[in-house]
Amino acid sequence: MKVSIIGATGYSGMELIRLLNNHANVDIVSLYSYSVENHGEQLHDILPHLKHVIDIPVSKVDYDSICQMSDLVFTACPSGVSKEIATEFVNRNHPVIDLSGDLRLSSPKDYQTYYGGELAEKSVREKFIYSLADTVTSEIGNYVSNPGCYATATLLALYPLVSHQLIEDLIIVDAKSGLSGAGKSLTPSSHFSTTNENMMLYKVNAHQHIPEINQQLKEWSSNDYKLQFNTSLIPVTRGIFVTSYVQLSKDISFDEVYSHYETAYQNKYFIRLQPKGLLPELKQVVGSNFCDIGLAYNDETGILTVVSVIDNLIKGAAGQAIQNMNLMAGFDEKQGLDFSPIYP
Amino acid sequence: MKVSIIGATGYSGMELIRLLNNHANVDIVSLYSYSVENHGEQLHDILPHLKHVIDIPVSKVDYDSICQMSDLVFTACPSGVSKEIATEFVNRNHPVIDLSGDLRLSSPKDYQTYYGGELAEKSVREKFIYSLADTVTSEIGNYVSNPGCYATATLLALYPLVSHQLIEDLIIVDAKSGLSGAGKSLTPSSHFSTTNENMMLYKVNAHQHIPEINQQLKEWSSNDYKLQFNTSLIPVTRGIFVTSYVQLSKDISFDEVYSHYETAYQNKYFIRLQPKGLLPELKQVVGSNFCDIGLAYNDETGILTVVSVIDNLIKGAAGQAIQNMNLMAGFDEKQGLDFSPIYP
Amino acid sequence: MKVSIIGATGYSGMELIRLLNNHANVDIVSLYSYSVENHGEQLHDILPHLKHVIDIPVSKVDYDSICQMSDLVFTACPSGVSKEIATEFVNRNHPVIDLSGDLRLSSPKDYQTYYGGELAEKSVREKFIYSLADTVTSEIGNYVSNPGCYATATLLALYPLVSHQLIEDLIIVDAKSGLSGAGKSLTPSSHFSTTNENMMLYKVNAHQHIPEINQQLKEWSSNDYKLQFNTSLIPVTRGIFVTSYVQLSKDISFDEVYSHYETAYQNKYFIRLQPKGLLPELKQVVGSNFCDIGLAYNDETGILTVVSVIDNLIKGAAGQAIQNMNLMAGFDEKQGLDFSPIYP
Amino acid sequence: MKVSIIGATGYSGMELIRLLNNHANVDIVSLYSYSVENHGEQLHDILPHLKHVIDIPVSKVDYDSICQMSDLVFTACPSGVSKEIATEFVNRNHPVIDLSGDLRLSSPKDYQTYYGGELAEKSVREKFIYSLADTVTSEIGNYVSNPGCYATATLLALYPLVSHQLIEDLIIVDAKSGLSGAGKSLTPSSHFSTTNENMMLYKVNAHQHIPEINQQLKEWSSNDYKLQFNTSLIPVTRGIFVTSYVQLSKDISFDEVYSHYETAYQNKYFIRLQPKGLLPELKQVVGSNFCDIGLAYNDETGILTVVSVIDNLIKGAAGQAIQNMNLMAGFDEKQGLDFSPIYP
Repeated sequence: MKVSIIGATGYSGMELIRLLNNHANVDIVSLYSYSVENHGEQLHDILPHLKHVIDIPVSKVDYDSICQMSDLVFTACPSGVSKEIATEFVNRNHPVIDLSGDLRLSSPKDYQTYYGGELAEKSVREKFIYSLADTVTSEIGNYVSNPGCYATATLLALYPLVSHQLIEDLIIVDAKSGLSGAGKSLTPSSHFSTTNENMMLYKVNAHQHIPEINQQLKEWSSNDYKLQFNTSLIPVTRGIFVTSYVQLSKDISFDEVYSHYETAYQNKYFIRLQPKGLLPELKQVVGSNFCDIGLAYNDETGILTVVSVIDNLIKGAAGQAIQNMNLMAGFDEKQGLDFSPIYP
Repeated sequence: MKVSIIGATGYSGMELIRLLNNHANVDIVSLYSYSVENHGEQLHDILPHLKHVIDIPVSKVDYDSICQMSDLVFTACPSGVSKEIATEFVNRNHPVIDLSGDLRLSSPKDYQTYYGGELAEKSVREKFIYSLADTVTSEIGNYVSNPGCYATATLLALYPLVSHQLIEDLIIVDAKSGLSGAGKSLTPSSHFSTTNENMMLYKVNAHQHIPEINQQLKEWSSNDYKLQFNTSLIPVTRGIFVTSYVQLSKDISFDEVYSHYETAYQNKYFIRLQPKGLLPELKQVVGSNFCDIGLAYNDETGILTVVSVIDNLIKGAAGQAIQNMNLMAGFDEKQGLDFSPIYP
Repeated sequence: MKVSIIGATGYSGMELIRLLNNHANVDIVSLYSYSVENHGEQLHDILPHLKHVIDIPVSKVDYDSICQMSDLVFTACPSGVSKEIATEFVNRNHPVIDLSGDLRLSSPKDYQTYYGGELAEKSVREKFIYSLADTVTSEIGNYVSNPGCYATATLLALYPLVSHQLIEDLIIVDAKSGLSGAGKSLTPSSHFSTTNENMMLYKVNAHQHIPEINQQLKEWSSNDYKLQFNTSLIPVTRGIFVTSYVQLSKDISFDEVYSHYETAYQNKYFIRLQPKGLLPELKQVVGSNFCDIGLAYNDETGILTVVSVIDNLIKGAAGQAIQNMNLMAGFDEKQGLDFSPIYP
Repeated sequence: MKVSIIGATGYSGMELIRLLNNHANVDIVSLYSYSVENHGEQLHDILPHLKHVIDIPVSKVDYDSICQMSDLVFTACPSGVSKEIATEFVNRNHPVIDLSGDLRLSSPKDYQTYYGGELAEKSVREKFIYSLADTVTSEIGNYVSNPGCYATATLLALYPLVSHQLIEDLIIVDAKSGLSGAGKSLTPSSHFSTTNENMMLYKVNAHQHIPEINQQLKEWSSNDYKLQFNTSLIPVTRGIFVTSYVQLSKDISFDEVYSHYETAYQNKYFIRLQPKGLLPELKQVVGSNFCDIGLAYNDETGILTVVSVIDNLIKGAAGQAIQNMNLMAGFDEKQGLDFSPIYP
């Protein structure tokens, strides 16, 4: 299978290249960038860590040529840009896996509120399946919208609870992310001297993954959950650590809840449910496509704590995109993703 | 005022020395340690960063001598040790400020559950006031039990809410601490290679500050709050970042709530209420005795997010102990504590 | 003594404010900035960590008004800007302590090579004394050029060796700095995801502190030393760690060399010579105005290793500037600087 | 090829497992540990990050059984332990790759000085080849002693210079390592609060890799080089950053020197020579088996700076051991090691 990548020099693009390079069924045939100035330069001249690893220049985007050269294109562009590109490929009937936020939402109002601007045209948007790879049951066609990093960790934590109505309506999610989640852009909050030895809550009640999570929860249940979703930066490069607090429905025991998780994820290689009462630490997934989930119940408060951890650039971006490609192409789901976390 | 410090080589003891050294009304007259082997050695030979700063040897504890030399003793010892020492000083009628968990709880059962072993004798224990320095109203006598670091940040965040019954019963607290909170002891979870680039939740539903917080909430209100209190380690050396989630009582607006905070803390130099809707970041208090508090309200979920941040070794330990000493001795509350955070 | 600060929102300016705020003989009367847009805003509205600490607005620079209000001005501006400002104050006969690189060099060629552009006019430049505060012997007049951070740590390490000709001509200096040394500007090499878990050598054979060090070495000795000076970034916020390698002259023993250090620094409070063979670690000075120096000799190679460590924003900038102010004004050298490092 | 690993729970052992797990020609058949208490437990119960990755218990060492089950054993044990184990396997004629310092030195005196105790018996020791995989030319037999991490980065930096006598006698090496280099053991200098935001030089003039480097330099040249070798800890988990300073021999130009590097490493996939004058940063190799080398020459001092960077657990331990296994077994040198660094 021949693939092209648009957005090759961003963090998600770099990670796609790193992982696809070891995928037995895939050849990366071409790379593209909007932000690079000197098109034609070798990628490893821009990113020295890739010397000896990949020998492909970064080209200017040319839709027709991409469609000719490759069987599939990954678009790892900023939100707002991807919708334009996606339209071009849909018009050419060329398969796309998009890593941006542009094609995740069905509500134009939500898109306007959280991203600004117009949502992609309905005819384009409806071609795309929002595919949380470990829970998706619908047929995956030729167009995939890859979930956001926070959304992935949060939804995988809540899936058994929501799809079986095991909890009360209020869901409180305290989510923390490392700095690579914000990409390469230079801002005061990405400066080492600001971020190191610091922690801060940001985009208070306004994070763009909120509508995406709510939309998926509604897919799983007709209940009207209230989601309080807070996001903080912690001084690590990679990783998302999500702590979710929910109240168990009356008449449901912790043991029953735990069984639902076991059932939901029993054949899911990339979901590692921790032993009852044990919570995962962030580092045990960094460098891998795993999402580790742990549950602890408090008898006195009736609150269930669910901790879910992922590597934001793998399970939260490039890894899940490849998992979706495997599903789309009928490859083994683990192909190219079957490696251990890096520890320490 | 002449003071002695027991536990001079631990993190809290070191911080007491650092701060008291610049206190205009205080002389440190003697230092003691249980863990140091070579009594009589100069402290700066054990802790080279204190060379030229302090010129006092570390001695073996001798209660009579301490009572003769000093007007007040700070005991910065591990829980389980302090209660024995406190008894000796109470018997000698010698003022004590204790930084351990030993004299905070009134319930023997809670002490047994969270610390293990027997609570200090009632006659000793009752002499000690639990003094959260920015809210205490009772007369401070000669014996102070200094609050825990998590408890300080959490209680200061909740004080206006609880003392005025502004919230529903369930309080969810997601608290994060830097590594110095666990002291100097060497454990797998203090190893740099384990902790760096990591985050983990620990002592799940079992942190020893839970009963201390509950006890103080009951002092402020007859309501029966349910406290879900989770503690995580983040890879910073100093600092506590507490995110609290509460549901506002019906008929109370966010503006009213904010006004209660303004009133509660209007004359409190060490509490810095952030502008409405803005949340503090951790680093803006590190190196200081400030507790910064911010509030954000979510119309859609009805949830109020309160973020409170402190330096765990200052406001959460040595700084608050000195503030309590100032209150006890009738000094200006800010004496010795009137310095800026270190930024960056 | 009334002082003004130009460049109040940069790292050095912030540190001057933090330290001068606790100086018994000084009042900060006004603050200025070139980069801030909304002149008139309170500093603590721009820098929230300073709330309750300082209550002064940031004004537009007005030379006449500064001369009227204050007895001394600190200029903590970028190189290239300071020379213009300094000229204005020299013309008005107003005392200045400048923290930039603009007034350190006497050679126009060196300035052109390492900073670019024209050196300040000779009449202005010659008024300024380059004052490495712990070694300066000349009378300090009304104009001080404060040494650079790398230069301070390196020169203090080499002073006894060079002023007594104890070494061969080649001096190899491997110097490392934390990120705050590069200030607040946003560059790819200040991005957390780039810098964290990384180390890199930069400005290879071209760091602008090289000519300043060479110039001072020539002041101390007529020898023609060859200085190989390399600078690296390490992932810490504060601190400079300098490892210097020199070959001892024939006929000089390590013990004699060590004695020279003892003599040179015996009355220097801010220089803490470590016991023979022991080398300081960075953290033992961070948060203080100390420079700790250690020596280790290798019999087999004949090489003396000298390690010197400082806090780049204190001893390497604001702290030394205040020490120079103390010398200038006849205050106790330690006034406002007599505090302990922060550990841990 | 069937392999066993002794020392499976240490950092090097864990890294061997992680990498060998993706090696096309290798099956890990059994794992052993001296330090684990409950033999028979699954490795992923001890190390949760390996869940779903490896399904092998940790057994008690049994030499006969290991020889029966596997074709090769990796011994990743502490120095002092490995020599005993190696003897057992030599006696049984079973191939070994040893990652400890026990079988690197030929001089009993050096071993005594730097490791303490007796060197392994001559008959055992002489079976082992010290194999710096990218420079080794001798036939690799059944017994390999894998170089140390510092030694690997330093020797690869110096190889072209020393094997062609391009430099004067004095070699100054300023080497820095991340914390994982010291393994899992808990010491004050591995504590996060001590190490974070810190840097320190350690084992001054006494690091155990000094004799190993000197021994190899003598293999390459009859010159009597004087090696000044200093080692520091920097606050990163993985990585070694080595800065070497040498004086070029008269009559040799920098261009000629650079050509020697090009020639020496032209067919070496794992050595990535940087463009002339450019120096590598640490992070560009972390997570890979690459050693990146850069050269910068200073006309004024005549000093050549060589920077070499590796991942200490891969190129400096497990990766190089696998590369040696590939050489030993006649596999492609890159087999199992052909992956990109992780960035960021």
